[in-house]
Amino acid sequence: MDNWRTAIATSDATNIWIRGHDIASLMTQGSFADTVFLLHQGRLPNAGERRLLDAILVGVADHGSGAPSCATARLAASGNRQSPSAAVAAGILAIGNEHGGAGADCMEMIANGIDRATKASISLEGVARKLVDDAKANHRRIPGLGHRVHSSDPRTPTLFSMAREVGLAGKGIAFMEALESQVREKIKPLPINIDGALAAVLYDIGFPPTFGMLVFIIGRVAGLTAEVAEEYAREKPMRIHVPVTYDGVPPREKGK
Amino acid sequence: MDNWRTAIATSDATNIWIRGHDIASLMTQGSFADTVFLLHQGRLPNAGERRLLDAILVGVADHGSGAPSCATARLAASGNRQSPSAAVAAGILAIGNEHGGAGADCMEMIANGIDRATKASISLEGVARKLVDDAKANHRRIPGLGHRVHSSDPRTPTLFSMAREVGLAGKGIAFMEALESQVREKIKPLPINIDGALAAVLYDIGFPPTFGMLVFIIGRVAGLTAEVAEEYAREKPMRIHVPVTYDGVPPREKGK
Amino acid sequence: MDNWRTAIATSDATNIWIRGHDIASLMTQGSFADTVFLLHQGRLPNAGERRLLDAILVGVADHGSGAPSCATARLAASGNRQSPSAAVAAGILAIGNEHGGAGADCMEMIANGIDRATKASISLEGVARKLVDDAKANHRRIPGLGHRVHSSDPRTPTLFSMAREVGLAGKGIAFMEALESQVREKIKPLPINIDGALAAVLYDIGFPPTFGMLVFIIGRVAGLTAEVAEEYAREKPMRIHVPVTYDGVPPREKGK
Amino acid sequence: MDNWRTAIATSDATNIWIRGHDIASLMTQGSFADTVFLLHQGRLPNAGERRLLDAILVGVADHGSGAPSCATARLAASGNRQSPSAAVAAGILAIGNEHGGAGADCMEMIANGIDRATKASISLEGVARKLVDDAKANHRRIPGLGHRVHSSDPRTPTLFSMAREVGLAGKGIAFMEALESQVREKIKPLPINIDGALAAVLYDIGFPPTFGMLVFIIGRVAGLTAEVAEEYAREKPMRIHVPVTYDGVPPREKGK
Repeated sequence: MDNWRTAIATSDATNIWIRGHDIASLMTQGSFADTVFLLHQGRLPNAGERRLLDAILVGVADHGSGAPSCATARLAASGNRQSPSAAVAAGILAIGNEHGGAGADCMEMIANGIDRATKASISLEGVARKLVDDAKANHRRIPGLGHRVHSSDPRTPTLFSMAREVGLAGKGIAFMEALESQVREKIKPLPINIDGALAAVLYDIGFPPTFGMLVFIIGRVAGLTAEVAEEYAREKPMRIHVPVTYDGVPPREKGK
Repeated sequence: MDNWRTAIATSDATNIWIRGHDIASLMTQGSFADTVFLLHQGRLPNAGERRLLDAILVGVADHGSGAPSCATARLAASGNRQSPSAAVAAGILAIGNEHGGAGADCMEMIANGIDRATKASISLEGVARKLVDDAKANHRRIPGLGHRVHSSDPRTPTLFSMAREVGLAGKGIAFMEALESQVREKIKPLPINIDGALAAVLYDIGFPPTFGMLVFIIGRVAGLTAEVAEEYAREKPMRIHVPVTYDGVPPREKGK
Repeated sequence: MDNWRTAIATSDATNIWIRGHDIASLMTQGSFADTVFLLHQGRLPNAGERRLLDAILVGVADHGSGAPSCATARLAASGNRQSPSAAVAAGILAIGNEHGGAGADCMEMIANGIDRATKASISLEGVARKLVDDAKANHRRIPGLGHRVHSSDPRTPTLFSMAREVGLAGKGIAFMEALESQVREKIKPLPINIDGALAAVLYDIGFPPTFGMLVFIIGRVAGLTAEVAEEYAREKPMRIHVPVTYDGVPPREKGK
Repeated sequence: MDNWRTAIATSDATNIWIRGHDIASLMTQGSFADTVFLLHQGRLPNAGERRLLDAILVGVADHGSGAPSCATARLAASGNRQSPSAAVAAGILAIGNEHGGAGADCMEMIANGIDRATKASISLEGVARKLVDDAKANHRRIPGLGHRVHSSDPRTPTLFSMAREVGLAGKGIAFMEALESQVREKIKPLPINIDGALAAVLYDIGFPPTFGMLVFIIGRVAGLTAEVAEEYAREKPMRIHVPVTYDGVPPREKGK
């Protein structure tokens, strides 16, 4: 097999480097958020960027055991107590386009919207108006707006205030706010949710769209490990039996 | 990297062989159970062995969406519709020592028990009596006996009858029946469950203990794929919200 | 939580039914392929359908430890010996659009092609010609044709002969053969690969497109369990170290 | 189904609390490491504890694409480009007793050793001496000592210096150093590796043994997401073919 190649990390007998940075220096001088930023952008963040990334990781860590990722991890732990990594991995597998994935779609939409505005020399408001009109006409949902549970998500204003405070609120936030305002006017009030908020902020600090889902995985794994640890500590194995109603063809007699 | 090595399968530009058998011959002359047997034992089964392995694979395929493996797959599919393999894999991760894993433990116990009987020239009944006495004294559960749901599992008599019919009932079945009889006498009636039944039969047809869990995975994946297909076809994404009661420390006021 | 609903399986204290069929009857009278067919189509197959499904499951079970699914399972087993299900699940996660997933895309293409032929009252050859012209013009690959390794896949003629022999070769096979012939004429000879072959046959025996990937998962899990069992039995933990060349930014001095 | 219960997180229409702490406060006032600590210990860390946990998370994030977890994630991504979470989960599944799991075993050993010292009123050195004598007599490996690759791991002295600097070096570090010194004297020099170092430090800041593996999962997921992002960005699907030597029974002729 040909050697694989990577630009992420390397080591020799007495050293380890991540993106060229000595691991001992990263350990003593920085935080985990610095290393996440470095791994994904190839440079260390400034203080404002670090605070925003930290806030996003905290914001998605956990908000209740009933979310699909947390509940999946606990169900797996209920049947399989041999491997904590198996239960955590099961929880991560529940993360996808429908749960924790809207951030990536939203970052894609933001990037395209801002691109269009730049190329066609129109305002972000103009692009947002067009996008909302299209979505309304085609009954399409706009990623990053509205929420199943929280009528107003406390994490969105928190993130946007922080971004303004550290001087990093840019076109990403502006575009999401333009969308929210157009939707309120033309459809109904749908607040920016956590996916929309983190997408706007991550765009403004230079992350690519794929990171919109990856950041959710990194943050959520903190919660998943706690959920699995609590399941092990407090609950008996095989405690979970989901109640099911059978609505298929009626049972036949034996042998028929 | 040094080449890996395997004794399982190989191929050239126009052929594929499994354990030395041409794939086209396996496809035309045998069933899937033949190939499972061949992969794990290195030889094709006779007709009786094939029937028993088929019956075991069928017996563990599915018995309701509420079992941890099936429920885990459906929960993962609820959040992640990007990858059917992710949902199926999540379901498999719920399989372990507590769910689908007792078969392996039971095969280990059977192998040890029969070994002891042979080496010490005592009867299987004698070994079983000793094992039940020890379990009773130490309040240990005996794998393969008793069931959470089915007061008498229809799969156990079915498997044992088939094994007798094809002339393959051996010491594995004899030992499990000796255990059941000792437990009934000294503790309480605990019927042999599906894990105990498949363990006895798999021992009698020459499988190693690890296969006791692997066979459950192979059979159950049929059910998991059907559960995932039904979830995709009939249910909306994110439909599943597990109800949770919070019993932790009370919420503090903001900023405290 | 509201009860979940399912039409797949149900049970009471002494019985288990799959799609209305008593499990004991399925175990004694049928094979695993029967139950796979039943789980996914809601009825038992006839003899020809069973033979074809069996042949497909056998055909995808394994063809070498170096395939992504098998190699992924072995790598996971190299680091994690706590849970066989974790290693098997890791192998399944390598199955997707690029590996084992072309069957589903191909079934979609076949279904659409045959639909178009019926609605527009044109021949399958006519639809195939158009599809190949479009693919050529847009430099798009056609799923189910060509192979990385096998210049001619032995499994394709085997499956098609069996389908003819049992009288079940239908429009699916006809359409794939029309495509192959058009591609040979207009682009270059690209034989129908195993994905194209199983897609054609599964279409002809009534499976929906999603099953094109699910059947690969069901069959491959037989191989994955054997790969994991061999890794456990013959190899030391942590034996696998993939050789990597670092081509990123050069290491800095410490503290810089 | 009865409600599940949790003491981790809860929310209402406009608030989310983790262990009673308002999420907005956690986002604005703390780092991700604070939230990881809070999730697992139920209280926020002091400045020294936070620095040590941060350093551990950074220290295990990545050290090369060839490690089982990273290589498994990349192999899965090679076959399955439908779901980034599937590739990351595959990488996590390679984490277990052999890779990333020694920290938990080591914490268990440390906790038992210190317990024994306290109960029997003997010194940590005395307990360490006994443990090394036993290990030598029984040819058992001691977790946390020695390394496959790094002759001296730069992360160990870094962590221990930091712990001393912030005044949190306790019995955990003392016990590991006593072990290392006994092993050097009685067997051969085997430096404390990263698993041993993080185990000592995590013990000293109050984490339970299970966290020894969970912390590795949390930190490593940062590296796994970067490995998957690089695989998507720089490599073609299905690029990875592991070279395999077949050493099984020779291929038979067709039909035999």
